[in-house]
Amino acid sequence: VDSTHLQKLIDIVGRENVLTEPSDTASFTTDWRGRFKGCCAAVVRPGSAKEVSEILRYASTHRIPVVPQGGNTGLVGGGIPDATGTAIVIALTRMNRVRKVDVLNDTMIVEAGCVLVNIQAAAREIDRIFPLSLGSEGSCQIGGNIATNAGGLEVVRYGPMRDHVLGLEVVLPNGDILEDILELRKNNTGYDLKQLFIGAEGTLGIITAASVRLYPRPHVTATAFCALASADDALSVLSMVKQRCGSRLSTFEILSKLQVDLVCTHADVQSPLTGSTPWFLLIELTDPDKDAPVEELLLNVLSDAMESGMVADAAIAQSDSQKESFWAIRHRVSEANVATGRVLSHDTSVPVSSCAEFVRQVESALKDQPSMQLSFVGHLGDGNIHAVAIFDRDRVSAKEFEVRASEVSSIVYDITRKLNGSISAEHGVGVSLRDKLPGHKNPVELELMRKIKRLMDPENIMNPAKLVTLN
Amino acid sequence: VDSTHLQKLIDIVGRENVLTEPSDTASFTTDWRGRFKGCCAAVVRPGSAKEVSEILRYASTHRIPVVPQGGNTGLVGGGIPDATGTAIVIALTRMNRVRKVDVLNDTMIVEAGCVLVNIQAAAREIDRIFPLSLGSEGSCQIGGNIATNAGGLEVVRYGPMRDHVLGLEVVLPNGDILEDILELRKNNTGYDLKQLFIGAEGTLGIITAASVRLYPRPHVTATAFCALASADDALSVLSMVKQRCGSRLSTFEILSKLQVDLVCTHADVQSPLTGSTPWFLLIELTDPDKDAPVEELLLNVLSDAMESGMVADAAIAQSDSQKESFWAIRHRVSEANVATGRVLSHDTSVPVSSCAEFVRQVESALKDQPSMQLSFVGHLGDGNIHAVAIFDRDRVSAKEFEVRASEVSSIVYDITRKLNGSISAEHGVGVSLRDKLPGHKNPVELELMRKIKRLMDPENIMNPAKLVTLN
Repeated sequence: VDSTHLQKLIDIVGRENVLTEPSDTASFTTDWRGRFKGCCAAVVRPGSAKEVSEILRYASTHRIPVVPQGGNTGLVGGGIPDATGTAIVIALTRMNRVRKVDVLNDTMIVEAGCVLVNIQAAAREIDRIFPLSLGSEGSCQIGGNIATNAGGLEVVRYGPMRDHVLGLEVVLPNGDILEDILELRKNNTGYDLKQLFIGAEGTLGIITAASVRLYPRPHVTATAFCALASADDALSVLSMVKQRCGSRLSTFEILSKLQVDLVCTHADVQSPLTGSTPWFLLIELTDPDKDAPVEELLLNVLSDAMESGMVADAAIAQSDSQKESFWAIRHRVSEANVATGRVLSHDTSVPVSSCAEFVRQVESALKDQPSMQLSFVGHLGDGNIHAVAIFDRDRVSAKEFEVRASEVSSIVYDITRKLNGSISAEHGVGVSLRDKLPGHKNPVELELMRKIKRLMDPENIMNPAKLVTLN
Repeated sequence: VDSTHLQKLIDIVGRENVLTEPSDTASFTTDWRGRFKGCCAAVVRPGSAKEVSEILRYASTHRIPVVPQGGNTGLVGGGIPDATGTAIVIALTRMNRVRKVDVLNDTMIVEAGCVLVNIQAAAREIDRIFPLSLGSEGSCQIGGNIATNAGGLEVVRYGPMRDHVLGLEVVLPNGDILEDILELRKNNTGYDLKQLFIGAEGTLGIITAASVRLYPRPHVTATAFCALASADDALSVLSMVKQRCGSRLSTFEILSKLQVDLVCTHADVQSPLTGSTPWFLLIELTDPDKDAPVEELLLNVLSDAMESGMVADAAIAQSDSQKESFWAIRHRVSEANVATGRVLSHDTSVPVSSCAEFVRQVESALKDQPSMQLSFVGHLGDGNIHAVAIFDRDRVSAKEFEVRASEVSSIVYDITRKLNGSISAEHGVGVSLRDKLPGHKNPVELELMRKIKRLMDPENIMNPAKLVTLN
């Protein structure tokens, strides 16, 4: 990017909002796990949709690649520029206002740079919740959550990010501002354009604001930790809990024994259950009715499940601190795994009914891998179980890990494909999975994706070579 | 369409599935209310996606306009061919199989021609529900429900049709079959292409099958009919019920006094409440937990609402027959209105919080219309209140009605626009509202819709001149 370009960017957003010093841009060109490292001509921090519009109009004219970035908490390299240094990073950080709260409509209009916890807090202030709940909620931004259709811990109850979006304000690559940001629950006046940008990972435009749905605040909670003999039993319990508890069910997480053991060993956490069953569940019910006997309901359902042999043992949290200790087991998985060895995680989904088969096939296919442990953890209610391969750091070098990781992933993805699953359930494609897409999506789908990309972004400036390649 | 074309169509689907006699095609070229009358070269009834593919490939090559049709229950003329007689109607009636039921995954794969009640019944057979619920459910087809993103009576709880679709099989205008029909709750591998076809009213391709979500079957129900002094009170009650009952709330319908009176007069139905308050609510709670005290909960909430003066009077159904009699008031609205006079209904939505303002402004703007009564009925929980103008049949001729209807609609749509609403909440655009779209959507949106239409359907064969015009 030559100095004319830089001056133009400065004219648009002000000198203090164009960063070019490597020490200033470093945190924008590497992801937080340090797995992707790029380079950029500048980091630009616009303060309004109008400024974003001027930047994109200029970038389109001069074919300057643009990488939009939210909280930089992604896992697939979607927000990191490539190594050429030709791109500008557009950081939405300054656009962090809650523009509007409408209590009777149960909606908010938020700017893309709002950090997720701040949106959650703004909702609680009016006795509502915004139900997206992620490990990175303290730093991820809603624009990124929308661009990646983020999932998390309560999708079984509330659905993914897509389900919370009522409208979007998006700047198109040519600088046009698409104002599709009504706050309506029903609107059948043509193609639902906003859907295109949700999950598009910044390849079709830059989301600058969104109208989102809020939900009633739960007033009672019941949390259980259960031990089970098999993943098939876990599916039976899930079905039973869903049918009897309905939308009280807000979390249904599964963990393999190894996973719980690793957390207890490395993260200073205690399991409420002893014994040696191979699977555990974290189940939570919530209800906005303060008198709802959710604990009694959960107890009844789990008692019946124990009687019919689906559940081996169960504990229901009797206090907030006990509830937190159950949750700690789930929350500290990543930390424990990283402390254990070199971690290769997968973000696949299959139909819920195929989850036990998925686990069996992955276990069987990987059982002879040397110096590697295999754990499972994830969102059984969504069919989204992360298969985690952890390699012994002493026996598998960083270089060897790369080779082995690629082999193991191929095996997991093959099984996923045979079970009609997805190789990216909630993390997106970015750079990590881009080249695997052609093996997992059919040619008609891929070609239509490319056609839409070319239509919307004819100069291919928007996050180029992320998600989909053009050729 | 010349005889070569007809022979080709016969080759594809068989002679018995190509109708050309006017007596055979008549029911496909007129809508059920008799408001749209067209003409067609043939009605073609394919039996598989492959046959649809061959038809569209041929139609694209020869630029033959194609009008897809489901149960022909639409309200905006979207499924009726124009008067030129050049188009072929593609009726999906023969594609009516439930291809797959997956109990543990809570999903079904259904073909486009499945009638909605049959899908509801197939779900009930496995102790689940498919929650789309419409007046026309006995004859509308799921393909049409998806193509129009149908709404109905339980959107406040379950969302519109879009929310139930996990995957689609769609034949594109060039004959390619887009197999985006996985049964996954999470899949972030690229643009969510299926969203384009939901609500596109058959202008981008023909939906031939869908994977859809099922939900737990409710086992208890509580139904109330309430009398209120104002629409503002209705909003307060809605908010209270939502916050305290959560997703137990499955229906929240509003009716104006005139509307209830008309039903009681013309449809042989009795209101459970006497008195002269201007507004009524039909509220239903459901719960899959058979022991859930939904009646007690509803009673408590309504008692509190009465104490604080929001509700003037209320009755909770004490038996199934009483429940049915409450619902009869809602279900027989159309019948009563048609018996009363010449009916002009609107399908607008506004933010829920603006509903009282919407009603006030419409009432005020139309108060001096001679020989016209104004009623309101609809889905307050979705911000979707149908304003219904009923003209005295003796004083307003059919011809005069046309002129007056256009004036009145303009007034209603202007108010809707000013309140950031939509002129089509759930019925779609079709022919009826097509020419009004440019006044209600911004140019960037409209232009992007046209670009997508041109991209997907370059020969403009798919339901041409419906929803969006190209120029």
